[in-house]
Amino acid sequence: MTRSILVLNGPNLNLLGEREPQIYGAETLADVEARCRDVAASAGLACRCLQSNHEGALIDAIQAARGTEAGIVINPGAYSHTSIAILDALSAYEGPVIEVHISNIHKRESFRHTSYVSRRAEAVIAGCGTEGYDFAIRRIATLIA
Amino acid sequence: MTRSILVLNGPNLNLLGEREPQIYGAETLADVEARCRDVAASAGLACRCLQSNHEGALIDAIQAARGTEAGIVINPGAYSHTSIAILDALSAYEGPVIEVHISNIHKRESFRHTSYVSRRAEAVIAGCGTEGYDFAIRRIATLIA
Amino acid sequence: MTRSILVLNGPNLNLLGEREPQIYGAETLADVEARCRDVAASAGLACRCLQSNHEGALIDAIQAARGTEAGIVINPGAYSHTSIAILDALSAYEGPVIEVHISNIHKRESFRHTSYVSRRAEAVIAGCGTEGYDFAIRRIATLIA
Amino acid sequence: MTRSILVLNGPNLNLLGEREPQIYGAETLADVEARCRDVAASAGLACRCLQSNHEGALIDAIQAARGTEAGIVINPGAYSHTSIAILDALSAYEGPVIEVHISNIHKRESFRHTSYVSRRAEAVIAGCGTEGYDFAIRRIATLIA
Amino acid sequence: MTRSILVLNGPNLNLLGEREPQIYGAETLADVEARCRDVAASAGLACRCLQSNHEGALIDAIQAARGTEAGIVINPGAYSHTSIAILDALSAYEGPVIEVHISNIHKRESFRHTSYVSRRAEAVIAGCGTEGYDFAIRRIATLIA
Amino acid sequence: MTRSILVLNGPNLNLLGEREPQIYGAETLADVEARCRDVAASAGLACRCLQSNHEGALIDAIQAARGTEAGIVINPGAYSHTSIAILDALSAYEGPVIEVHISNIHKRESFRHTSYVSRRAEAVIAGCGTEGYDFAIRRIATLIA
Amino acid sequence: MTRSILVLNGPNLNLLGEREPQIYGAETLADVEARCRDVAASAGLACRCLQSNHEGALIDAIQAARGTEAGIVINPGAYSHTSIAILDALSAYEGPVIEVHISNIHKRESFRHTSYVSRRAEAVIAGCGTEGYDFAIRRIATLIA
Amino acid sequence: MTRSILVLNGPNLNLLGEREPQIYGAETLADVEARCRDVAASAGLACRCLQSNHEGALIDAIQAARGTEAGIVINPGAYSHTSIAILDALSAYEGPVIEVHISNIHKRESFRHTSYVSRRAEAVIAGCGTEGYDFAIRRIATLIA
Amino acid sequence: MTRSILVLNGPNLNLLGEREPQIYGAETLADVEARCRDVAASAGLACRCLQSNHEGALIDAIQAARGTEAGIVINPGAYSHTSIAILDALSAYEGPVIEVHISNIHKRESFRHTSYVSRRAEAVIAGCGTEGYDFAIRRIATLIA
Amino acid sequence: MTRSILVLNGPNLNLLGEREPQIYGAETLADVEARCRDVAASAGLACRCLQSNHEGALIDAIQAARGTEAGIVINPGAYSHTSIAILDALSAYEGPVIEVHISNIHKRESFRHTSYVSRRAEAVIAGCGTEGYDFAIRRIATLIA
Amino acid sequence: MTRSILVLNGPNLNLLGEREPQIYGAETLADVEARCRDVAASAGLACRCLQSNHEGALIDAIQAARGTEAGIVINPGAYSHTSIAILDALSAYEGPVIEVHISNIHKRESFRHTSYVSRRAEAVIAGCGTEGYDFAIRRIATLIA
Amino acid sequence: MTRSILVLNGPNLNLLGEREPQIYGAETLADVEARCRDVAASAGLACRCLQSNHEGALIDAIQAARGTEAGIVINPGAYSHTSIAILDALSAYEGPVIEVHISNIHKRESFRHTSYVSRRAEAVIAGCGTEGYDFAIRRIATLIA
Repeated sequence: MTRSILVLNGPNLNLLGEREPQIYGAETLADVEARCRDVAASAGLACRCLQSNHEGALIDAIQAARGTEAGIVINPGAYSHTSIAILDALSAYEGPVIEVHISNIHKRESFRHTSYVSRRAEAVIAGCGTEGYDFAIRRIATLIA
Repeated sequence: MTRSILVLNGPNLNLLGEREPQIYGAETLADVEARCRDVAASAGLACRCLQSNHEGALIDAIQAARGTEAGIVINPGAYSHTSIAILDALSAYEGPVIEVHISNIHKRESFRHTSYVSRRAEAVIAGCGTEGYDFAIRRIATLIA
Repeated sequence: MTRSILVLNGPNLNLLGEREPQIYGAETLADVEARCRDVAASAGLACRCLQSNHEGALIDAIQAARGTEAGIVINPGAYSHTSIAILDALSAYEGPVIEVHISNIHKRESFRHTSYVSRRAEAVIAGCGTEGYDFAIRRIATLIA
Repeated sequence: MTRSILVLNGPNLNLLGEREPQIYGAETLADVEARCRDVAASAGLACRCLQSNHEGALIDAIQAARGTEAGIVINPGAYSHTSIAILDALSAYEGPVIEVHISNIHKRESFRHTSYVSRRAEAVIAGCGTEGYDFAIRRIATLIA
Repeated sequence: MTRSILVLNGPNLNLLGEREPQIYGAETLADVEARCRDVAASAGLACRCLQSNHEGALIDAIQAARGTEAGIVINPGAYSHTSIAILDALSAYEGPVIEVHISNIHKRESFRHTSYVSRRAEAVIAGCGTEGYDFAIRRIATLIA
Repeated sequence: MTRSILVLNGPNLNLLGEREPQIYGAETLADVEARCRDVAASAGLACRCLQSNHEGALIDAIQAARGTEAGIVINPGAYSHTSIAILDALSAYEGPVIEVHISNIHKRESFRHTSYVSRRAEAVIAGCGTEGYDFAIRRIATLIA
Repeated sequence: MTRSILVLNGPNLNLLGEREPQIYGAETLADVEARCRDVAASAGLACRCLQSNHEGALIDAIQAARGTEAGIVINPGAYSHTSIAILDALSAYEGPVIEVHISNIHKRESFRHTSYVSRRAEAVIAGCGTEGYDFAIRRIATLIA
Repeated sequence: MTRSILVLNGPNLNLLGEREPQIYGAETLADVEARCRDVAASAGLACRCLQSNHEGALIDAIQAARGTEAGIVINPGAYSHTSIAILDALSAYEGPVIEVHISNIHKRESFRHTSYVSRRAEAVIAGCGTEGYDFAIRRIATLIA
Repeated sequence: MTRSILVLNGPNLNLLGEREPQIYGAETLADVEARCRDVAASAGLACRCLQSNHEGALIDAIQAARGTEAGIVINPGAYSHTSIAILDALSAYEGPVIEVHISNIHKRESFRHTSYVSRRAEAVIAGCGTEGYDFAIRRIATLIA
Repeated sequence: MTRSILVLNGPNLNLLGEREPQIYGAETLADVEARCRDVAASAGLACRCLQSNHEGALIDAIQAARGTEAGIVINPGAYSHTSIAILDALSAYEGPVIEVHISNIHKRESFRHTSYVSRRAEAVIAGCGTEGYDFAIRRIATLIA
Repeated sequence: MTRSILVLNGPNLNLLGEREPQIYGAETLADVEARCRDVAASAGLACRCLQSNHEGALIDAIQAARGTEAGIVINPGAYSHTSIAILDALSAYEGPVIEVHISNIHKRESFRHTSYVSRRAEAVIAGCGTEGYDFAIRRIATLIA
Repeated sequence: MTRSILVLNGPNLNLLGEREPQIYGAETLADVEARCRDVAASAGLACRCLQSNHEGALIDAIQAARGTEAGIVINPGAYSHTSIAILDALSAYEGPVIEVHISNIHKRESFRHTSYVSRRAEAVIAGCGTEGYDFAIRRIATLIA
């Protein structure tokens, strides 16, 4: 049976392509999710995608991934820097987790330089634009091969 | 066509008039929202009002204001101090934003002295009681005149 | 009429018994809530229980307890450390509040050492496992006797 | 007898309209003071105005307002951030105090984010341009009504 | 043979019932120790009690408990916040340790918010008044059952 | 020839007896200066007194004391905490300097806990009310005996 | 009946006159205590003196002063900077407390700049040499007159 | 003509495969460099590789890349955290820079959480093992396409 | 017409040659100002000199230089470290500003290591003794050539 | 006459050989003290040994060493990090002082990284196990040779 | 015999004229060194110049200057902020040292605001462009005259 | 076959005997290395010695010691406080490491109080002069016995 991964996007990433395109690029979230499915498929994986502006909804989704998803690619957006609860949900998840940021958060305001999620994630990819999702999915494929 | 502004209230502001009246005064949120509509009307503006205890719901509302509302008056309550996600949503909004606090947050606990929203807002009005909403609406009217 | 108390559990506590059992023990949340009802009953109190991963939902529940619940036992989970909004909701509640943590948060990462809720709570019980809920309910019974 | 308020402006505000107009606007201090008198008059108040670059002169003026002025609107300029002596003078004044900043100081250098005066002022209005003086006078009128 | 526990009270707790009763309650230390013995007895445990204002005497007592006492309930008073030496003595003790504070130390001055002893204790109970000792003894009983 | 000392009072001390009498007492500055002259006289010293709200005027006075005054008693008021320039002026003065604070500044806001002047003063007397001036003058008398 | 005060000296003050005389002067502790008794007598007060290197012994002495001594003059030596337990003992004492330091601690290492005892003391006298004890006794006499 | 990129490895990376393989994996630096050449070739790029333990040698190499290399992939090792000079050298380089760390530096000691190089790099890839070099080269290929 | 520059000296610099000559040298301020005029003259510039101990007077002088002086050489003395108001006045001045310190402030107390004025000045010359004024005037001559 | 040195051990070092042997080794304190006497004897020195859990007792012992002991080897245990009073006692001692820690305190919790005693000690030897005492005695022998 | 001085330039200063000319100007290092020789010659001094990107090479050069060079002008570049080893080498050098920065480092990133070298240098000249070297050489000439 | 140890000295230690002899003593590095060889020989060990001012050269030497040297005695000089790269090189070395400082670094500037190397070293010996090398070699001999 085809294994599946979860691609999770946090607050304001539904605005992708509209908000600060000079930082985040012009692709929409739908574009990105479509390409994620393609990249996953080329690695023999299914790919479920979810975006929410609600911290609690992201936690629910991570909990639901326990025992069902083979890996999680997560762009926690601004919750990276403030949510210990998402960190705890990810800590209760058994598979690999890759954290993605479209921009290089280390070049932005200092409150974006630390991420609670990074304490749990196997890897962090920041500043590769939306190509970062491709790399993250490929890395998950390597890890669960 | 009449332009409209959004008056957004964050967590616990639905308790206005009930909670710590020595700090916040005796008016209810309904009272305040009614007066906001009056003040806006006197400036030739419509006024939509929303309150939520949910950070995600506030973000959804801010996103929905893009392209539809001519300005936002926001009292982010406790989320002022903790929510980078609301800051990001406001940063993706194109119109003027005025931040209101009913009490003078600078006289309270030190964790209330900094606000992420202030990094985006055109102005911050703190400690004018509920009259602060009137001033904020008038300021928006000036800015979009 | 039987007075009632509210037992409120925050994010990821629905995973009790599954997540890091070496830290949190093997009981499920349902087990804990059942025992809470027993302990409360033995003190002549009813006991309503609620868990949510959503900060806003916890705030809603605390607000609803105003004027109806004789006390609150709350394990805010990770929101202890990040939510000023929950602190504000509890500050608007008139009865006693006891904060419970299953593990001893003071032995874990430093960002778990401070709790906004502790600024409002009458007492903090950390590291007594799920027996901490029993102690908290008994303490509420003493305080409202 | 007509009650009077004091509008006090600190260092460099005599340059209003000349210095960094992209931040502070093009009105001169004389323009602003004239409008302050109008706004006060419309609220049935007299209005005395004073500007000084000298911290000691500002303290002298605040002391002289004791028992004679019904309220103080103060834009302490750069002394906001460094003068405990002005704070002490205001603490010895018995009436309401509203602090005004023409620009949103929270968006500027971090050393402009804290104000000693805010510890005493009833309210802080920052970033409303010179319209902030109007709001401040109206707020004083409300408070002493 | 009946197992025994040690109830250890640090500096100024001999003044219990006399000092700041609005914070610490009206019971004397003798009252509390008597009740500790009752609670312990009801759990089939003996209970030895000791109070000292001397850090060294507390260390001596903890060392003497090695191999003889089945658990320690300790209210280190002000030494909680300053004594690494007591922490070290407790680290050399093999049984469970429960830390008790009569008041909720997290609501008091910031230098009372951290406790060296909490790094070693299985649990921390703060703000339950003298009932906290009862809970601590019961928790020890659970742990060594 | 009778040697003389300088008693220097900083900002807002001209309000003595009027401002926050629960902290500073009911004597006026004139009362205090009169008593200073008496205490000095009893030690065979003349006593010149000066108060100013202007930092620059205090510096001028300290400079003028070089080579003419046998000692300085200074209550720098709020400038204690902010004025390096007064510290520098005192460093250029050759005689003994005693710093006086009427209230115990260590029990007030944390920004009043450090004083630049203390780095230069021979002694600091805080919280003895206006009697602190007496002690300071006596100490100068001892030092220059 | 003659009222009495307690003069309490902390660690290493028994070395007075021997240790670092350039900082502390050449008088011995016995000299100082004798003069304290004289100054107290001239104010109609008895004077008991105690020195100890043991924190616990100082606490014991402060507790014993409750209800028996009309005031405490304390030079806590190095325990000023590290002992919350002494602060707590003094907080349980009902009379006036004056803190004395022979040297000006504000001119020494930064860890000597803060004193827990200052949070409780009515006044702090630092750098007046052993004459500081005289001033402290006189201040107590004023306060209990 | 084929464009070329530079793959630069800093201190101790010559030990790859030998040092702490549980963190860094078993591949040698030669293995990694060979694969880099393959990945680059598949993108139509040449690839020069250099490793040095000498900060100055890394700076020399970065300077030499000006005008000759189309991009730089750099794993600065421990110099990431301490070398402003390497940051300056990269700032004088005109092409894209991708920073790679084999392990997730955000899960290690806190002094490894900040990187001067990240202030200049377009992207940071950490924790993808040696596959991170592949992703970095592919990203450069995208950027210079 | 001959262009002119302003040489501005802050608090205590009138004591030059008298105060701490081991740090500041033996020249008087009059000597320095005379030499400044010579150096300026040799560069074809007039030179006006002013010293004040009053922060407000320095601000007044800087404001008066707007549109009249071709450059400012300023030694702000202790106000360097505390005066945002002087920084603001200089920011409203349109010509070049060179900051001079006679001693190397970076070798003195840490509170002398930062200067608000340095945020505005084109250059900072510290520790060249009074020759620093010569260099500063020459640099201004270069900049306005 | 044979000169003597003092070997002083602080809190919990009486447990040597029992407490955390993986850190401190299996030798008892008696073993170590015996070896100290041997090493001292081989250098022609007598050696007195003392251990106490009481800070005051350690201070008493250091004071008693004045004028009688030719040097002090001290392992202050946890008091290293918290006792300014021991530092002061050592500062009043005229001979050489060597500080010994059995474990490398710099590899343990951060609150063990700083030692007040190190400000006074000629040397610090940490992590050499109990052999550190040998080295310390030899170093004293060298210093007083 | 003609005395000589050493002009030492640190990392990336070989790029002068190429790197960020808007900050550093258009002269090349060769230009600057040539002018240094001219300025030195006009003061009757020889001038040796050296640039290196290697911290160790700079240390070697400073050590070699001991006993041979009459003064050092050093622009340590980025090593200013990170190299204690260069500070130590300069501390072992007996002649005067002047630190030069082409740009005003106090206006750049905060990590460029502190310099270890400034703790040793007689003077610091920042922001005078390459003319700073001229001033530094002239100052050395004054100092060794 | 005779086992060997490596004695490694960092920047400026080649100046031993010349630089600040009041801190470091009069022996030259050659003297110290000769004595190291003697001490090692007396323990049946060979001893290789190396000094460099180049961080990279020290790293190279540490890497070369892998598999060949039975232990390392290292005095990293100023690199102790700044070089994570040397720490990493030592972490990749399998044998015991003893860190030596000739002076007691804890009595010097605060930036010398922390050492990255101490996180890896088995022991740290500071302030024993050059005798510290002897102790370090003896400790290595003990550890590898």
